[in-house]
Order: sequence, then C-alpha cells, then structure tokens
Amino acid sequence: MINEDKLIKALQKSSHGFIGDDAAVLPSFNANTNYVIAKDVLAEDRHFRIKHFTAEHLAHKALHVNLSDLAAMGARPLYLLCGLSIPDNLQHYACEFLNALTDICQKNGVILIGGDTTASKSHFFISITVIGQATETNIKYRSTAQMDDVICLAGNLGFAHLGFQCLEQSKATDSLYINSFLCPEAKIKEGLWFGKQASITSMMDVSDGLYIDLKRLCEASNKGAEINIDYLLKYSTTEISLQSILEGGEDYGLLVTVNKDSFKALSHEFSKTFGYNLKRIGHIREEQGLEFKQAKQRVEIPLKPFSHFGENL
Amino acid sequence: MINEDKLIKALQKSSHGFIGDDAAVLPSFNANTNYVIAKDVLAEDRHFRIKHFTAEHLAHKALHVNLSDLAAMGARPLYLLCGLSIPDNLQHYACEFLNALTDICQKNGVILIGGDTTASKSHFFISITVIGQATETNIKYRSTAQMDDVICLAGNLGFAHLGFQCLEQSKATDSLYINSFLCPEAKIKEGLWFGKQASITSMMDVSDGLYIDLKRLCEASNKGAEINIDYLLKYSTTEISLQSILEGGEDYGLLVTVNKDSFKALSHEFSKTFGYNLKRIGHIREEQGLEFKQAKQRVEIPLKPFSHFGENL
Repeated sequence: MINEDKLIKALQKSSHGFIGDDAAVLPSFNANTNYVIAKDVLAEDRHFRIKHFTAEHLAHKALHVNLSDLAAMGARPLYLLCGLSIPDNLQHYACEFLNALTDICQKNGVILIGGDTTASKSHFFISITVIGQATETNIKYRSTAQMDDVICLAGNLGFAHLGFQCLEQSKATDSLYINSFLCPEAKIKEGLWFGKQASITSMMDVSDGLYIDLKRLCEASNKGAEINIDYLLKYSTTEISLQSILEGGEDYGLLVTVNKDSFKALSHEFSKTFGYNLKRIGHIREEQGLEFKQAKQRVEIPLKPFSHFGENL
Repeated sequence: MINEDKLIKALQKSSHGFIGDDAAVLPSFNANTNYVIAKDVLAEDRHFRIKHFTAEHLAHKALHVNLSDLAAMGARPLYLLCGLSIPDNLQHYACEFLNALTDICQKNGVILIGGDTTASKSHFFISITVIGQATETNIKYRSTAQMDDVICLAGNLGFAHLGFQCLEQSKATDSLYINSFLCPEAKIKEGLWFGKQASITSMMDVSDGLYIDLKRLCEASNKGAEINIDYLLKYSTTEISLQSILEGGEDYGLLVTVNKDSFKALSHEFSKTFGYNLKRIGHIREEQGLEFKQAKQRVEIPLKPFSHFGENL
C-alpha cells in the first residue's frame, strides 16, 4: 500500500529542499528573465496503455511531453510538479514510475518541487506541471508568424503514430518507430537555440500532428500556409503514409517559421550545430487556411478534424 | 462533444492573453517577491461524487482546495492551470465546470493561464496548479515551529466530515456542515495576515484532519505537541464527535504556531480583524509525538494512521 507521507519523504530527498510545505516557493530572477509554465495530463487507455510502457518509459514520456512545451517557447526546464491518481492494482507500478521520474528529472537537470498523489477508482492518471526559465527577448510564440516566412520542422512526422500502430497490432517494426512513441525526446536544446535566433518569427511543438498544429499556429498568427507535399514525402520513409505524416501526433518536433531571407543561413547553422537538417515544408501566406501543393499543383487531402475526445488510442 | 480548441478559445477570453501558446509566460517580480506554486488532484469517487456536487460547487471546491495551500504559505493567489480528464458521459458537466471555474477565478482575482483537457475512459479527474505571490519575509513554513509556541487554528474541525457523512447517508443536517464540505473557503486573507505577523512561527492548512496535519507540522519542525481536548470540545458542536474533530479532513482551516509571549496580543488583533476567534488548541514541546490532555490528565485516543489510499469516500 502506498503511503503519501512516505512518498513525499522519498521525493523530498531529491527535491533540493523544495518539497515539504503546502506549496513550493520559486526563487526570483532578474527582470529580464521569465518563468514559463506548462501542464499536460496523460490518461491511461487514452494516451498510454500500461502493457506498452515500462514505468521507466512512461516516466520518460510524461516528462518529455511536458518539456516539449517548454522547448517550444525557447525555455530551459527547471522545476516539475507531479499529480498522480493511482488505481489499487497499479500501486507498485506507480512507485516505480515515481522513482523513474525522479531519476529522469535529475538527469535532465529538472527539480521535482511538489505534487499530489491520490487513489483512483479505475484508471491511472498523470498530471505534470513544468516550469522553465527563458530570457524575455528569446521567448517565441505561435502568434507571430509573418507572410512569406519559411515553415520548418526540427524532427520527424508520423514516426510515433506508426510505432503506436505496430504496438497495438503486435506487428514487428523498426525500433526507431516504437521508440518514437514510447520515448520521445523533447527538443530542449533546439528550442533554446531557436529562441536566440532573431529570424525565427514563431514556434510551437507538434504534439497533435502537423496538420492540426500548423493550423493552430496559422490561426494564432492570423495567417495561412501552403504545405509542399513533395517535401514532406521526401523527408519521410516508405513505411509512413501521407495521412500519418500530416495527422500522426506525439512526435514532439518543433515547428518554426523563419524569415525568408534568413532561412538559408539559419538552416546551415542548424545542421552544423545539431548534426541533422531542418526540414523546409512550406511557407506562410496571407490567405487563411492550409493549402497543399504537389508537383506545383494544388491538391485536396481529406483530413478529419482532430479532437482529443474522438481519438482512438 | 467537447472540442479542445473551442474550449481553449473560450478560456482565452478571460485569460488576459496568457492562454494560446504551449506554455504560459509569468511576469517577473522584484527580488523581494516570490512565486509560490501548489498542485492538487481531485478524483471522482475518491474526493467527490458527481451526485453531491453541482458543477459550480465542484469548481468552487477545486479552486479553494488549491487556494488553501497558498493561504497556508502567506501567499496571494495569482494564476491557475487546470487539467481535466473527462469521461464521455460528463462532457456537459465538464463544460459547466470549466465555465464556473473561469467565473470563480475572476471573482477571486485569479487568472487561468493554461491547462490541458483530455478524455477519460472512466472517472472525472481534476488537476489544478495554482501560483501565488508572497513577500519573501512573509512566507511561512511548517518546519519552523518552536518549543512552547501556542498552537492555534483559524477555522473549524470536523464540519466538512459531518457534512459529507450526512450527504452519503442522505441525512438532514445544518446546511453549515453540508456547505463546509461542498464549498470550503480558503482562508486567503487570514493567510496573508498571518504572513505579516513576526510572531507566527509556522503555518500550514488542515486538509487531511488535525491529527495528521499537526503531526506533519511537528515532524517537519522536529518537535512534538500537546493537544488540549477540553479546548477542542469547547470550540465544537454537540453533533461532532471527538474522532471527527481530530480526524475529519477537508475543513481547510489554517494551523499556526505563535510565540507564547505574543499570543494574547495576536489573538486579540485577529478577532478584531476577522470578526471571529483564533482557537488555541495546545502547545509545541520538545519531545516528539502528539500527546492529548483532558482535565489536565494525559489521555489515549486510538487514531488510525491516515492514508489517501485507505480512505473511504
């Protein structure tokens, strides 16, 4: 049986003195530095199945899903709060999860500063709040894309979705896809680097799929986008369908818009710094909505509107 | 069917421009001011039953349970993040909950700055993170109680527990008890006031019951306490058993320790300021553990160790 006080004491050891009161006191910064905070909920049998994830994998994913939100702002992760609702039959698993989360936080230089654990009558729920720090002038938003900006992606599309499908159907596949689903890596370093580049006009992470997330970026910026299908297919592998490229979520790449005149130099610098290429996938236009082009022709691609509540896991 | 983007847009309207990106950027303060952050999870059929709570009551309670943690630090609430996992049959209720939460945040001067909504396969889960601000020198901790300090309580004991029991057993009772369970009021003003008093040596809220919470305060301070049962009974009503006074949770009073020499003046000031009395319930002693005294005699009261996982709702 899990005892909350014991849990808290175990967590306290690695909390640098933060855990122990009703609330955690955050140190203050100088005026040019901001805290950045994000919260994500992961629900069993919606976002994960226990049979797919070891406790270590789930802790990794729960952390990185949240870190990805900080990366998307150009922030450096600092602190984490973790809320868990634990069904009776998963108490041992939940303990392993918390131990693994503590370890992985330490490895990532993130301090667990608080949280809450409670029993659940049915499923396992994970609610994480992360807090990061960013230089005010380096923070990137999704509402600031400009006309003619080049739309780029750091990361892959559809990999996690293929991995998930193979797990669900017990199909063998390249471990690259499985790991993309089980152990996504938040692009913290890339986010911090993008934050420093004045030519990056907007940024967000791709958590729900390229189509829906680019649509969100465009709507926030009051702009539209043209997406080059030839580019998307060129960057992908034969196993992944165009539908998965456009709609498969959970790859946690970073979507950025770059000033057109700066794109070439930025792209070159990116490759040199990170050892892989930034993917050019289209451009921002004034006319709202997303348009797809293939072999220079406009093409229609039937896409279902995304909703967490309609999704199948 | 709830659509996450629609929800976010609805929330954006009252978010003062915070919601809309992957993460919320917190404004920075001068060096003498700190952010204070807390997180609480409420699980359906563990912390609440839908049949007991209107969406408005539940929103009120979810907010105040969290605000109480800020009150306990002497912090002024500023921001809130809300994570929800919503079962299919409660989508309408969840919408009402979010609308009510937005309203009640506004009424309390709290800004909803982010969150996450997701589907749930079974129960309704609420995860709230609150962030407040406190002057560094006014922040109170639970680890700083001193020997001979007077232990005081602002608030009631066992009221919420009696209200809950009457609801569960469909028994009629005073609405005072029912409301204590359904609509607890976080003692924000009292917390801020205590924060300013140098004679308050430690503070925490009583969320899990006096016995367990005072034990936590004592352990954090490396001290013990003597509790005066005559006092506890004098402050209470005939409907409430001693067991409920000591173990009934969810009343969200503030437990403070006061320097012995300052108690009288502080108590007088408190009554004048808030229109009700601070309850003296015992004192801190060097010897660890809690001891009960009745008619000046030591008495043994059999108490079960508290655990969220063993609790009955």
